[in-house]
Amino acid sequence: MDTYQKIMVALDLSSESEVVLRKAHLIAGSNADIHLVYVQEPMDNIYVGIVPQSAAFSGLGDLEAQLSEELKHKLTALGDKFNVSPGNLHILHGSPASEIHRFANENEVQLIVIGTHGRKGLQLLLGSTANAVLHGAGCDVLSVKVGAAS
Amino acid sequence: MDTYQKIMVALDLSSESEVVLRKAHLIAGSNADIHLVYVQEPMDNIYVGIVPQSAAFSGLGDLEAQLSEELKHKLTALGDKFNVSPGNLHILHGSPASEIHRFANENEVQLIVIGTHGRKGLQLLLGSTANAVLHGAGCDVLSVKVGAAS
Repeated sequence: MDTYQKIMVALDLSSESEVVLRKAHLIAGSNADIHLVYVQEPMDNIYVGIVPQSAAFSGLGDLEAQLSEELKHKLTALGDKFNVSPGNLHILHGSPASEIHRFANENEVQLIVIGTHGRKGLQLLLGSTANAVLHGAGCDVLSVKVGAAS
Repeated sequence: MDTYQKIMVALDLSSESEVVLRKAHLIAGSNADIHLVYVQEPMDNIYVGIVPQSAAFSGLGDLEAQLSEELKHKLTALGDKFNVSPGNLHILHGSPASEIHRFANENEVQLIVIGTHGRKGLQLLLGSTANAVLHGAGCDVLSVKVGAAS
């Protein structure tokens, strides 16, 4: 049995993404195939009930496109820094846990690496993505502690 | 930043424990300090409401001692097989997730490795220990898929 050769790093593209990525690199086999994945949730999913769902509020699509561009830039910069080839950078759309599971299954990923936050305030909510990913993953999952409470 | 040097492997001492332990070894640094931990839950915790809690049912203590001996044997055998020194084998008593967190904190563990089961029937319940460990862990957690549904 060899160490992990096909690794998927699920990133939130926050400043803590580098910590997560560095850990993934540390435990990866020397020739490991590392994929960086960001899942963009549709804005009208996130803000349903908060922003008005009428034609009058038509700026959402533009905002989303703008955000998408910015995310692409960030992901590319991370890929450059960690020598991940552009073909291994992926922006997916949908619900994070389901998209991560789908990508892992379709690409026969052996290990999912994901950041998990300390349990305080809003971060408690953010951290739950790691729990959702663990629950129902078909492969091993490394949860990397980021922004831990002191 | 170096790879994980202090690792705790939380085992259920089932036949799948070797799979979990092998993964821990694969990602450990060459001089890593690996601790094997089994948490024995008090029987009267597990069976409360199922077995009568009266003095008439006094066999529980004997059974528990017998089980404890058997678990010690199994843990020692695993330790021998994977070159873990006897001083790094631990049987703790209490609630699994809390004991695992306590041990990890007190020993400045960098990575907890734990098996997680496929989601079917009784295994769904067993698998939930991994989720409980992830939730509230102060360090990284590697969840190793064992006995996965096909």
